[in-house]
Amino acid sequence: MSFGDRLAGVFADRGRLCVGIDPHAHLLESWGLPASASGVRAFGLAVVAATAGRAGIVKPQVAFFERYGSAGYAALEEVLAAARAAGLLVIADAKRGDIGTSVTAYAEAWLTPGSPLEADAMTIAAFQGVGSIADPMRLAEANGKGLFVLAATSNPEAAAIQQAVVASGARSGLTVARAIIEDVSSFNLAQAPRAFGSIGLVLGATLDLADYGIDTSTAPAANAAPVLAPGFGHQGAQVRDAPRLFGALAGGVIVSESRGLLGAGPAGLADAIEERAEEVRSSHV
Amino acid sequence: MSFGDRLAGVFADRGRLCVGIDPHAHLLESWGLPASASGVRAFGLAVVAATAGRAGIVKPQVAFFERYGSAGYAALEEVLAAARAAGLLVIADAKRGDIGTSVTAYAEAWLTPGSPLEADAMTIAAFQGVGSIADPMRLAEANGKGLFVLAATSNPEAAAIQQAVVASGARSGLTVARAIIEDVSSFNLAQAPRAFGSIGLVLGATLDLADYGIDTSTAPAANAAPVLAPGFGHQGAQVRDAPRLFGALAGGVIVSESRGLLGAGPAGLADAIEERAEEVRSSHV
Repeated sequence: MSFGDRLAGVFADRGRLCVGIDPHAHLLESWGLPASASGVRAFGLAVVAATAGRAGIVKPQVAFFERYGSAGYAALEEVLAAARAAGLLVIADAKRGDIGTSVTAYAEAWLTPGSPLEADAMTIAAFQGVGSIADPMRLAEANGKGLFVLAATSNPEAAAIQQAVVASGARSGLTVARAIIEDVSSFNLAQAPRAFGSIGLVLGATLDLADYGIDTSTAPAANAAPVLAPGFGHQGAQVRDAPRLFGALAGGVIVSESRGLLGAGPAGLADAIEERAEEVRSSHV
Repeated sequence: MSFGDRLAGVFADRGRLCVGIDPHAHLLESWGLPASASGVRAFGLAVVAATAGRAGIVKPQVAFFERYGSAGYAALEEVLAAARAAGLLVIADAKRGDIGTSVTAYAEAWLTPGSPLEADAMTIAAFQGVGSIADPMRLAEANGKGLFVLAATSNPEAAAIQQAVVASGARSGLTVARAIIEDVSSFNLAQAPRAFGSIGLVLGATLDLADYGIDTSTAPAANAAPVLAPGFGHQGAQVRDAPRLFGALAGGVIVSESRGLLGAGPAGLADAIEERAEEVRSSHV
């Protein structure tokens, strides 16, 4: 089953809320956990347990596990396995990127069935061109996995690069963000029709996408790119505004939240997720 | 001691050759090693042993270790420790990138003394803006470590994004590659004077940098960015052409080579490195 079809199933069964697994130092401390591999392991497993049955998607931030080296990665492997065993869709927030056999090795690490770091999807950066991630796109598609390609991210200092204008080639005159979206859409459209394409986009919910030269007035009839959208909840964007923010892409929006939920602490997390998941289900139009 | 001063010392003592540690599947097979964590461990330790005393810098490609999850990372930790114990300068080719506490966690993972993955420098991508890596830049500077920021990479499919023209803000009118270089140079210039700045650049040796809007005719009197330059040797660029290719930045060029050396196999590698290191020392002007 393709990633896009699985995502549509999760939307139908559990809704669009994606719970971030972000065990940074400050949160570990407020949760009463050590700043160590065992701390991030306990944190990650607690978020998985609180999410299971209440929302459908989790997004571990790989950096907070890599911080502790191989021991942190062993903790991450346990968290990934627990999440997948609980029926959650897992997006590894890795933001990897490279060329050739290197970027293929990253895709193999995260998107190969049976790999120790197996996830359902990963985030990826195309600073070396969307062509540089062609192999990961094909590998994701072939394995029933997904990719989310950074396009217009929510941090203000990204604007200079992501709004820059392509000066030559097939995407000349488009912004960098828009050119990435066009390349991703072309790939998705060339595949068999599914609920959503295997290759998604990262688009911040706190942005005016028109500032990034992005036209959301139309979307393809099939295989539209799913959208991993940070910026809801704590960061201020409202889920009911998704149609205004994302236009024809709103149907594929994943509502990614971390701080607002994780701040509830280990005792309050399950209730916070349950309440927020229901809000998201009832406010998405 | 700053990274830039340490790099200058390595140039003086051992020269500019940087040996890639790239245990991809094809090379493991031709070396007679298994495609596993123990295979990449053996490969990495063999490259370190062959480089020690013959060249001064190694660059492990992290993707080929991450492919094997936590076991691959445990292998990488051994390789990194062996390289540093042998007095080699270690550039972790990680191409990480993110924002906020996430990108800081990556910098802590690779650039903190005593961290399990400690290296001397790492490669990093600024697709989310050079502002997004401000914390890693400060952390590198404070820890005597280095960063190499992707600017103009050697793969042709990168041109659309890296040659795109910034449309607003302080770097308006510059290409993305040039804007990154200007931001990196500004940071380096604001630090105490050293042989080279702590924050370097990745610039491909097979490119015409003028196509990327990069002006190499002048460099600052102090703290010029070191340049990690793939494309020499096997990929065709000649070290004697460094002044023509990199202009005022030529003094900081690190000659990064992988395939041409690693293809010599485990029996021939030490001789290949010795010969090539001598060629690089004698041909750099």
